[in-house]
Amino acid sequence: MQRMGMVIGLKPEKVAEYKRLHADTWPSVLERLTKSHIRNYSIFLKEPENLLFSYWEYHGDDFAADAARIAEDPETVRWWTHTDPCQVPLSTRKDGEFWARMEEVFHLD
Amino acid sequence: MQRMGMVIGLKPEKVAEYKRLHADTWPSVLERLTKSHIRNYSIFLKEPENLLFSYWEYHGDDFAADAARIAEDPETVRWWTHTDPCQVPLSTRKDGEFWARMEEVFHLD
Repeated sequence: MQRMGMVIGLKPEKVAEYKRLHADTWPSVLERLTKSHIRNYSIFLKEPENLLFSYWEYHGDDFAADAARIAEDPETVRWWTHTDPCQVPLSTRKDGEFWARMEEVFHLD
Repeated sequence: MQRMGMVIGLKPEKVAEYKRLHADTWPSVLERLTKSHIRNYSIFLKEPENLLFSYWEYHGDDFAADAARIAEDPETVRWWTHTDPCQVPLSTRKDGEFWARMEEVFHLD
């Protein structure tokens, strides 16, 4: 199992909409995440910096393939037309990233 | 169980020291966390913004009391003399906070 932490900005005028969307995330989107072996997925918001931090546990053995299946899913792509305009990717993200991956520096079971 | 997400800054000149400390965290400190019902605790680092994001799952029923037991523990207090000088609390943190708590806006089991 691989723990993954990611960060992205949120537009201040989109905070309410982002919360509303995620309080009622589409079941099809959740199902696709689960099929891609993503578990225990949380998103936290820090205001007023408007930073979103996400954490999940990846239980598969080919994350690139599982992420590609998510990105190809028509329902997820449609979901992202709602969520992407809320978010502001960090300028320091790596090539190919939208949410920027972070480095795990500590873990205690 | 309560999922908690927190954020704090890290001084750029202390990144290496912070990683080194957390690669070999004192067993007494880990034991005190476990006794205070903290589980599945991870810290992630985003460079070059030098933000630390922590995530844990609190399994007790009185977090204030458990946090107080941690803050009174002599070994933990001594540990913090090493880690506190590495960190820069966010100016927007709430009264009484060092790490700033975040709001959970999404969760998928």
